[in-house]
Amino acid sequence: MNDYLFKLDFKVRDYECDLQGIVNNSVYQNYLEHTRHEYLKSIGVDFAALAAENVNLIAVRVELDYKHPLRSGDAFWVGLTMEKVSRIRFAFVQEIYRYPDNLLILNGRTIATAMNEKGRPMLPKQLTGFFV
Amino acid sequence: MNDYLFKLDFKVRDYECDLQGIVNNSVYQNYLEHTRHEYLKSIGVDFAALAAENVNLIAVRVELDYKHPLRSGDAFWVGLTMEKVSRIRFAFVQEIYRYPDNLLILNGRTIATAMNEKGRPMLPKQLTGFFV
Amino acid sequence: MNDYLFKLDFKVRDYECDLQGIVNNSVYQNYLEHTRHEYLKSIGVDFAALAAENVNLIAVRVELDYKHPLRSGDAFWVGLTMEKVSRIRFAFVQEIYRYPDNLLILNGRTIATAMNEKGRPMLPKQLTGFFV
Amino acid sequence: MNDYLFKLDFKVRDYECDLQGIVNNSVYQNYLEHTRHEYLKSIGVDFAALAAENVNLIAVRVELDYKHPLRSGDAFWVGLTMEKVSRIRFAFVQEIYRYPDNLLILNGRTIATAMNEKGRPMLPKQLTGFFV
Repeated sequence: MNDYLFKLDFKVRDYECDLQGIVNNSVYQNYLEHTRHEYLKSIGVDFAALAAENVNLIAVRVELDYKHPLRSGDAFWVGLTMEKVSRIRFAFVQEIYRYPDNLLILNGRTIATAMNEKGRPMLPKQLTGFFV
Repeated sequence: MNDYLFKLDFKVRDYECDLQGIVNNSVYQNYLEHTRHEYLKSIGVDFAALAAENVNLIAVRVELDYKHPLRSGDAFWVGLTMEKVSRIRFAFVQEIYRYPDNLLILNGRTIATAMNEKGRPMLPKQLTGFFV
Repeated sequence: MNDYLFKLDFKVRDYECDLQGIVNNSVYQNYLEHTRHEYLKSIGVDFAALAAENVNLIAVRVELDYKHPLRSGDAFWVGLTMEKVSRIRFAFVQEIYRYPDNLLILNGRTIATAMNEKGRPMLPKQLTGFFV
Repeated sequence: MNDYLFKLDFKVRDYECDLQGIVNNSVYQNYLEHTRHEYLKSIGVDFAALAAENVNLIAVRVELDYKHPLRSGDAFWVGLTMEKVSRIRFAFVQEIYRYPDNLLILNGRTIATAMNEKGRPMLPKQLTGFFV
């Protein structure tokens, strides 16, 4: 639970919960995405600015293991690490833990790449640096 | 209930319902927005294409009267009319009715305008035509 | 800008932004709702717990004035005050301000009531106390 | 593309698109969930009614392969089949195809189970029938 490149704190918002009284399955992807974008910004990669220049970071595959649900009032944190998958693909490996007991809520793995407006792979230099 | 410029059918999706087992308050704005955009497209105004050209339709004020909640499984329809508010502002007047009993669910009024990338008012010609 | 009962800090998440590159209109209601629920919890009223007991806080009318849009990367805060509307209705008056310049982003007014599972008005005692 | 148990038609709504001008990654889970619930309802399993009785269908693992993005204005359909995974686990296998060219947009696999309020596995009889 200790070797994350980046951690971000969250709190469940009631509108994120569904009929079952728990956070809806799709919302965990929102938490993971926001954590990825905050991490990227922390290393100088601005998702929105890149999109405005038609360089897009794109998820190719997502794997989510739901361990326990989050509920109204829960505070939690997301930890992030990265793995190189191929020359132009990388994976964000993310876990969600509940406060204060650090119960594991979810394991996520998002395989991503980046491409320019012509659909050509084009990794931001801050990320290529990561893979040297 | 009869003099709408445009009508659109919907069905509640379970992820739109919240802890209370009813459609979350914010989701009605999604229904209203989608109906507005489909109406605009039907008269030749493409919201996404305009946004790509930096001409943006912008909501200035929204008023929503919640009459009855929608629940899982409900089918419903949105009716839309338009009103001129000023030289550069117009209002979408929208009601939501449940199927099959036509129970009034919500009254909505969205005052909108359009502006170009310099922030200058710039009404798409299809809409100026509307106000002649 | 000073006399709020409650304030809450937020940061725009990229998934909340739409085609126009700004926070989608409906998302502001999410911000306002989360602030209301956090405020209520701070005075001992738990929205989710009440819902589980079939006592529901219900929005009757929402008015939103959109002054300026929020964008990717913006930090902002929501201020909340309350007004008595009638014996069983109250209003949450909320404003959203951008950090660090305190630009006014949105004025919101949500008229609400509470009712039990039989549809009878039933104000939580913490809120009736508020109106003495 | 032909042997689905169930198919459902959709149209992209603009609020589902993000800064990149494409449907946000998390929204595909909404499409898949709505299709699953409509399918279940078609065989007599009501997700919301079960939740109200504290019998919950729960996703244990989700795998999503993003092949091509959906954009504003796109119409598409979701096809669904089911697989038995274990005595108490089953998988919804789903694909999303764009209209009218049937371009494959996404492959999804959702492994699910059902449990009662005590956390005991409890498959609705309509689903056990499926696995005979």
